[in-house]
Amino acid sequence: MRLKVDLLPGQDYADVVILVDVLRATTAAPILLERAGLYVTPSLRAARAVAAQHDLLLAGERDGLPPEGFNYSASPDDLRRARLGDRDVVLTTENGPRALAHVASAKHVLLGSFYNARAVTDAALRLATDEIAIVCSGMRGEEAIEDIVCAGFLARRVVKQGEGRGVEPRERVRLAQTLLRAFADPQEALAQSESGQLLMRLGLHEDLAVASLISHSDAVPRLARAFDVEGHPVYAFEDVGRGAPSSRAAPQETA
Amino acid sequence: MRLKVDLLPGQDYADVVILVDVLRATTAAPILLERAGLYVTPSLRAARAVAAQHDLLLAGERDGLPPEGFNYSASPDDLRRARLGDRDVVLTTENGPRALAHVASAKHVLLGSFYNARAVTDAALRLATDEIAIVCSGMRGEEAIEDIVCAGFLARRVVKQGEGRGVEPRERVRLAQTLLRAFADPQEALAQSESGQLLMRLGLHEDLAVASLISHSDAVPRLARAFDVEGHPVYAFEDVGRGAPSSRAAPQETA
Repeated sequence: MRLKVDLLPGQDYADVVILVDVLRATTAAPILLERAGLYVTPSLRAARAVAAQHDLLLAGERDGLPPEGFNYSASPDDLRRARLGDRDVVLTTENGPRALAHVASAKHVLLGSFYNARAVTDAALRLATDEIAIVCSGMRGEEAIEDIVCAGFLARRVVKQGEGRGVEPRERVRLAQTLLRAFADPQEALAQSESGQLLMRLGLHEDLAVASLISHSDAVPRLARAFDVEGHPVYAFEDVGRGAPSSRAAPQETA
Repeated sequence: MRLKVDLLPGQDYADVVILVDVLRATTAAPILLERAGLYVTPSLRAARAVAAQHDLLLAGERDGLPPEGFNYSASPDDLRRARLGDRDVVLTTENGPRALAHVASAKHVLLGSFYNARAVTDAALRLATDEIAIVCSGMRGEEAIEDIVCAGFLARRVVKQGEGRGVEPRERVRLAQTLLRAFADPQEALAQSESGQLLMRLGLHEDLAVASLISHSDAVPRLARAFDVEGHPVYAFEDVGRGAPSSRAAPQETA
């Protein structure tokens, strides 16, 4: 089985993709999916429209801060403590959701981060037949340190757990793993990143701490379907983590 | 002044570019330019044509080995010992020359590696007004460890030597420098890379050793002009290193 890391979203993903946007979309996603149905979209407009149609809570950010009228920011720290009741959530942030368009045609698209590292790599190994591609979202089209370091972390676990399945890591897997080793711990890497520095300037230090927690969630968001809302894509996720209550299904059809 | 590192060739380079292809084009280039006029092309066909027209020596590789009829491979180790007489040389390899097309519109395009690190960063600082972009060639469209580590090395020197000129390093500069620190020395990084492993399988260990030598050359290849030969670009270089004999001029016009 092939194992690859893409430092930015590429194309031609055939089998399993783990999409990584540590700060903060793919850290927030498992936190939300543990307790609610989850939609993700790159578009503010689509987020508002789908939320109005289906009485969803709005979570997300632009430049690190929640847009007007949103119930929550994209802060993993806030979202861990949020009382969602029984409402589903639509999440919109700037990088991860945009990257989804590049990978959406893969057979299985999972969202991964340090926060669900064990669960997402277990799921990837369970689902994959030919390839696991760990795809970094980056930041505004440029490579992001925190995503590469997290990709290195997930790749290491795939190699370890995938022993006996002939996992062949390629050069960029070594690159990501080497970068991982260069930092004392994940939080130091997050603090070095541009996204991390933006969050710290906004006083959101706690988000870096939460995003550095390892395997605190067993939720594994998997893309269930995509549909268009006012010309923008909206992605519905289901939980395929082992811990999911009989695998939480994707929210009801909304297209 | 801005300082940036691109892990793969991008676009929109306005001021100074240092193009890096450690294994082996931008290591071989200063070695050749110390003793001969230098042309570079990504095309075998154009290399043969321009060599025939102007009685040039042919140096280069495909899959690590010299193509039929070539005088030399792209081996820095061989080229250091080659007796060129008074003939100029055309060099064709797979990654660096192809990357030239992406950066050719910049004001100054320099070729850099560990081998001419001091000279090329000095020249970049001398020539730059707004930006120094260190651009990694990569390997077949994918990021290459050895180029990123070398970019980190060159960036470190630009930051140090550029003190007082307000050099602002961006995130990928930190990424490259972090990767650099993760290796004991350049040669270890080269040995981890896919290109390095290919060369070692071909028995060319000595090339990794030569490509790891730091600042052994004062030659700084700068793109002087580009012209077309049978539909393919050929790039002529001049030496703008301080050590150049009254700055070695580009070979005579051939277009």
